[in-house]
Amino acid sequence: MPGNSFGEAFRITTAGESHGPGNLVVIDGCPPGLALAPLDIAAELKRRRPGQNPLVTTRTEDDAPEILSGVFEGRTTGTSLAILVRNADVRSQDYDALRDSYRPGHADFTYAEKYGVRDHRGGGRASARETVARVAAGAVAKKLLRAAFGGQVLGWVCQVGTVRAAIDPDAVVTTDVEEVPDGGPNFVRCPDPAAYGAMVSAIEQARREGDSLGGVAEFVARNVPAGLGEPVFDKLKADLAKALFSIPAVLGVEYGSGFAGAAMRGSEHNDAFAGGTGVVTETNRHGGMLGGISSGMPIVLRAAVKPTSSVPRPQRSVTSEGVPTIVTTTGRHDPCVLPRFVPIGEAMIAIVLADHWIRWRGQRGALG
Amino acid sequence: MPGNSFGEAFRITTAGESHGPGNLVVIDGCPPGLALAPLDIAAELKRRRPGQNPLVTTRTEDDAPEILSGVFEGRTTGTSLAILVRNADVRSQDYDALRDSYRPGHADFTYAEKYGVRDHRGGGRASARETVARVAAGAVAKKLLRAAFGGQVLGWVCQVGTVRAAIDPDAVVTTDVEEVPDGGPNFVRCPDPAAYGAMVSAIEQARREGDSLGGVAEFVARNVPAGLGEPVFDKLKADLAKALFSIPAVLGVEYGSGFAGAAMRGSEHNDAFAGGTGVVTETNRHGGMLGGISSGMPIVLRAAVKPTSSVPRPQRSVTSEGVPTIVTTTGRHDPCVLPRFVPIGEAMIAIVLADHWIRWRGQRGALG
Amino acid sequence: MPGNSFGEAFRITTAGESHGPGNLVVIDGCPPGLALAPLDIAAELKRRRPGQNPLVTTRTEDDAPEILSGVFEGRTTGTSLAILVRNADVRSQDYDALRDSYRPGHADFTYAEKYGVRDHRGGGRASARETVARVAAGAVAKKLLRAAFGGQVLGWVCQVGTVRAAIDPDAVVTTDVEEVPDGGPNFVRCPDPAAYGAMVSAIEQARREGDSLGGVAEFVARNVPAGLGEPVFDKLKADLAKALFSIPAVLGVEYGSGFAGAAMRGSEHNDAFAGGTGVVTETNRHGGMLGGISSGMPIVLRAAVKPTSSVPRPQRSVTSEGVPTIVTTTGRHDPCVLPRFVPIGEAMIAIVLADHWIRWRGQRGALG
Amino acid sequence: MPGNSFGEAFRITTAGESHGPGNLVVIDGCPPGLALAPLDIAAELKRRRPGQNPLVTTRTEDDAPEILSGVFEGRTTGTSLAILVRNADVRSQDYDALRDSYRPGHADFTYAEKYGVRDHRGGGRASARETVARVAAGAVAKKLLRAAFGGQVLGWVCQVGTVRAAIDPDAVVTTDVEEVPDGGPNFVRCPDPAAYGAMVSAIEQARREGDSLGGVAEFVARNVPAGLGEPVFDKLKADLAKALFSIPAVLGVEYGSGFAGAAMRGSEHNDAFAGGTGVVTETNRHGGMLGGISSGMPIVLRAAVKPTSSVPRPQRSVTSEGVPTIVTTTGRHDPCVLPRFVPIGEAMIAIVLADHWIRWRGQRGALG
Repeated sequence: MPGNSFGEAFRITTAGESHGPGNLVVIDGCPPGLALAPLDIAAELKRRRPGQNPLVTTRTEDDAPEILSGVFEGRTTGTSLAILVRNADVRSQDYDALRDSYRPGHADFTYAEKYGVRDHRGGGRASARETVARVAAGAVAKKLLRAAFGGQVLGWVCQVGTVRAAIDPDAVVTTDVEEVPDGGPNFVRCPDPAAYGAMVSAIEQARREGDSLGGVAEFVARNVPAGLGEPVFDKLKADLAKALFSIPAVLGVEYGSGFAGAAMRGSEHNDAFAGGTGVVTETNRHGGMLGGISSGMPIVLRAAVKPTSSVPRPQRSVTSEGVPTIVTTTGRHDPCVLPRFVPIGEAMIAIVLADHWIRWRGQRGALG
Repeated sequence: MPGNSFGEAFRITTAGESHGPGNLVVIDGCPPGLALAPLDIAAELKRRRPGQNPLVTTRTEDDAPEILSGVFEGRTTGTSLAILVRNADVRSQDYDALRDSYRPGHADFTYAEKYGVRDHRGGGRASARETVARVAAGAVAKKLLRAAFGGQVLGWVCQVGTVRAAIDPDAVVTTDVEEVPDGGPNFVRCPDPAAYGAMVSAIEQARREGDSLGGVAEFVARNVPAGLGEPVFDKLKADLAKALFSIPAVLGVEYGSGFAGAAMRGSEHNDAFAGGTGVVTETNRHGGMLGGISSGMPIVLRAAVKPTSSVPRPQRSVTSEGVPTIVTTTGRHDPCVLPRFVPIGEAMIAIVLADHWIRWRGQRGALG
Repeated sequence: MPGNSFGEAFRITTAGESHGPGNLVVIDGCPPGLALAPLDIAAELKRRRPGQNPLVTTRTEDDAPEILSGVFEGRTTGTSLAILVRNADVRSQDYDALRDSYRPGHADFTYAEKYGVRDHRGGGRASARETVARVAAGAVAKKLLRAAFGGQVLGWVCQVGTVRAAIDPDAVVTTDVEEVPDGGPNFVRCPDPAAYGAMVSAIEQARREGDSLGGVAEFVARNVPAGLGEPVFDKLKADLAKALFSIPAVLGVEYGSGFAGAAMRGSEHNDAFAGGTGVVTETNRHGGMLGGISSGMPIVLRAAVKPTSSVPRPQRSVTSEGVPTIVTTTGRHDPCVLPRFVPIGEAMIAIVLADHWIRWRGQRGALG
Repeated sequence: MPGNSFGEAFRITTAGESHGPGNLVVIDGCPPGLALAPLDIAAELKRRRPGQNPLVTTRTEDDAPEILSGVFEGRTTGTSLAILVRNADVRSQDYDALRDSYRPGHADFTYAEKYGVRDHRGGGRASARETVARVAAGAVAKKLLRAAFGGQVLGWVCQVGTVRAAIDPDAVVTTDVEEVPDGGPNFVRCPDPAAYGAMVSAIEQARREGDSLGGVAEFVARNVPAGLGEPVFDKLKADLAKALFSIPAVLGVEYGSGFAGAAMRGSEHNDAFAGGTGVVTETNRHGGMLGGISSGMPIVLRAAVKPTSSVPRPQRSVTSEGVPTIVTTTGRHDPCVLPRFVPIGEAMIAIVLADHWIRWRGQRGALG
């Protein structure tokens, strides 16, 4: 009934608030024998970390993970694996003024309605800070996918505000996302050099103007074997969509041809099958999933992310008594969360794939 | 691990294939005391039924539901409620030629990869025929929402192929969707009279040309109390998205401002809170959910549906041995599934809301 | 939240009441490719069937199973498998007098408290009639265990009232349970010929006196591979205990040395390990499970069953208004349910083992 | 699929090994507004703590709980609540000799078969050390039951080895369990003063002889409202049995009349209903549950616990290669775990009741 667990066979359970002692995840169902070190997790946390570059929030978190259980002598034991990430740079006093009023675009009002009580410090459990636990779990899932079938999940930013990049999902490699052509860090995680410059400018301008931008991230999962996903409700596309929609700020998800595909005709939309080494399709408008089950082609997804709700300017709102008021957010926030959204989305996709991989292995060939 | 159940507190489990004896749903968790008759279910099945109007498939199914358990003297007992809908108009021989080849756009290939065996008759379990069980369950969920808080879930078609309608979600009523202005049946379930004619023409043309169209459906859920949805994974938006994505042919889902919202600025996207009788927002770009929890404002969702994969024309494919072949679909199919998609989407949304309503009631005030 | 499903990877969901149209089970997660015919199911139902011999209830049910989905050309497809067993010999009028009073030992009162409404006809959902769906599912699970690892689940009666049998669990074979030494049917399903006669007499005497008897059944699961069961809550012993306790009338469950083991010393209780072909233990006081995980030794369990609550004599009770009354049960009932309990217990044990087998296969070797 | 979570609406997930950094529990679904301080948890941990008195293991653990999330300003927020208990007195070197051999009665062999890898230090995840997380969660559940309906869960030891106590479950109060008549600590948690002395002597003698004892604990849950439990699989008796069987060393569970009831006749076993202020039964052989649903009468359960497997004397075993060997356990262990088992059993019972209480509240009256 409660909602802090995700997955069936590779199941994660998270806890923690923005301004509490820390955030943690328990991974239940990670197969035994996987090599895993704190550094594997720290590397992914670093990509999500606040303060990582000039375009994101200035909150500074070391985000050093502690593995509390489930790893023995460098390998997973198969029993529950817990990872704790302590919070460090907490400035709860920034939020004192918000104790009794609701920030527009935030969950303040809905949490108050739901629970009667709320932890107003930095959004409490509704803060994007909780995603640190997701990324820690995603690091484990990624290692599992790689070990199990050479799987890779890679994401990037393809739209910031009204700036759209031109990207071929099949051609992107990790360094395109993490670095710009001259080798410096890719602050936006956009692999299109032309769009990159415009995106940086747009984000800097939004910050100067006390405003924020949304955007779209795109993800590809490669080498996923055909057969993952369960009819009829736990279709792979359905679980991937739920995973992405569960991330704060996501407004929409599409795969393959997506909303544009709705305007096409069947004769042009269907991907013809082709033989050769294994069955493949000539095109990939189906985004790697047919009937909600992986086809062996690359899985391609996109997620729309809303502009950050916290903008450092006065906004019309009401108090918890319903009295009109003006709220001004003074915490430290991202003018555009897209660059940090990429590792979070990757993590959730990797978790879904790890889950369905184990589910599929259990069913297939169970007759021996 | 398997995927034929959906929901936690109001949980449905379905079974049945396109060309087997029938389809059924078990609803576990329907509260006791709800008035329920077979006619309540039949009315919703009729809206989904094949052969209901000239624009849809000519398969003819009576779709008469049999309540097998869970109702006593006209009211639900609180124990598991089973509904069976027998299949009638089955022409399995239409599919004999497809036993060893894969239809483009269908799940034939992925099921074969997943299970090793497949029921090739009409898609077996991957057929949209399975949604008859969802609509039966949705009829119960709708009655529950109405009884519990006057809830209403209403959907319509807002795009067919490239024809887009102009619709104000707050203004649509049931008769706008089911009838055209002169009182006749609304074959497309599009409440915009101007777009309606163009949509009918587009569908008729696609059928004449042996082709098919996709489109977009929009849904609104009204009177939903604030507080539904569970952080952090079972957010209401996440479960609604999973529910819609679990329906065959859905390529994308968005709520509120959706993908368009990704291009906006935070200052224009945030909905200001307003007081008065209860807290409301001045605008509804948040689509009735903040932090993934219902806000009390109307919940607004859209789903992109791909053009029907079954088109009566030769298509390139391969056999199960990987040998190139040409397949020609000869079964009876919808040139555009959107009109029949509307009641299916409504059903899934109602099921999610019923589930979260019961979940919320369990937690709230459990301290007495 | 509701309780009509059992299992994770091999999950059954049941519906149906004693005097409704029928009872059904949906099995979700049965692996593809298992040979399955209605006769496989009918054979197990026959062992549970009322009216099968002079010692049980005279209600007559044909119990012919209809497979509604999940089997194609004689083999399971891997998708959800539904089985319906219609009720035939229903005499609801027998229960009219009970509409407003509570039968001692039955669930009448607790259902009324729980749901507010109740189906008083023959106990409704609380009737042992619901176990027909469990036995149908158990027939599938048994076939799966046999195909997967030559698994066998066998039960028998080891106590009726105060008559206790002397049985070596390792030595019992199916014919010992189903037949008496001269080849006739074993009405009690007790493989100890000496105790058998005394049990038959005791049951006949109880019936003559308008009374009923309880007893104890014992079960063994053979050839179960080591490694099944999940720490720490889904231990195999925990899931087996839940499975048996979920059957109506079960008062207690023990495995291996059981309650008697509580009086032993560690030095005498521990089973020494021995080598040879695979690791085994010299004795089996641990009942085939260590740390809640199967050891490869035979799994041995016992369940205590209460005397049938329905006895055809006046009993003190109250009406739904709390007014003292006398109720007299007039339906048809078993003077001792133990003979029919055996196939039900076997079914639940087989379902648990099928579930854990698939769960284990998913996790083990998932790294490829 | 994995097994480290328990419960549906009040769901606990645990992690941690005997000799790792610590043990933790995430409670998902605790209702908001419950007053909760670390001291509430510490008080229960103290009752389970090793080293608490001369009859138990000499391992010394401070067992100071850290609340990592879910509590704000002294009250639960309704979001996930995490509690961490660090391990302190770890002597892993005691186990070095066991790296490649299997201790009789322990899970060493079955874990090795299941996972391929194992954490041999003190049993790893199979150690009773993991129950510290259960007791922490149970402390929260107990507070919830008390706040919600004045519920109380109380356990005691009723048998140690062959010494049996005579106890009336309705008469026992907390001080009887925690103190002896002269006010000193009750080292055994047995409220029968006569049996108490014999139990202490028996445990001391077993320790002197390098041996161990088992026993039986009894539990009562009071003030539980009628209506808790779900038909047909999640019966309250079934979930309680699973909860108790999930605890290490439990060999058997019974409720109400239990195994003794199996020898009774229906006419003497049925509890007559009586009116008055609310419906009650004249006797309580049904142990507070009818049809698996609480009746409002006290819930009474007993659990059989095996003698501690770790006995400080040489035992026959085999190495992981199957070669015969002698193992001698040298860690610190309880000669009889019963005194410390009591708070663990209470915790699990409280967790089941909290879970079913919330589940029931969700369903009941959901129609408004």
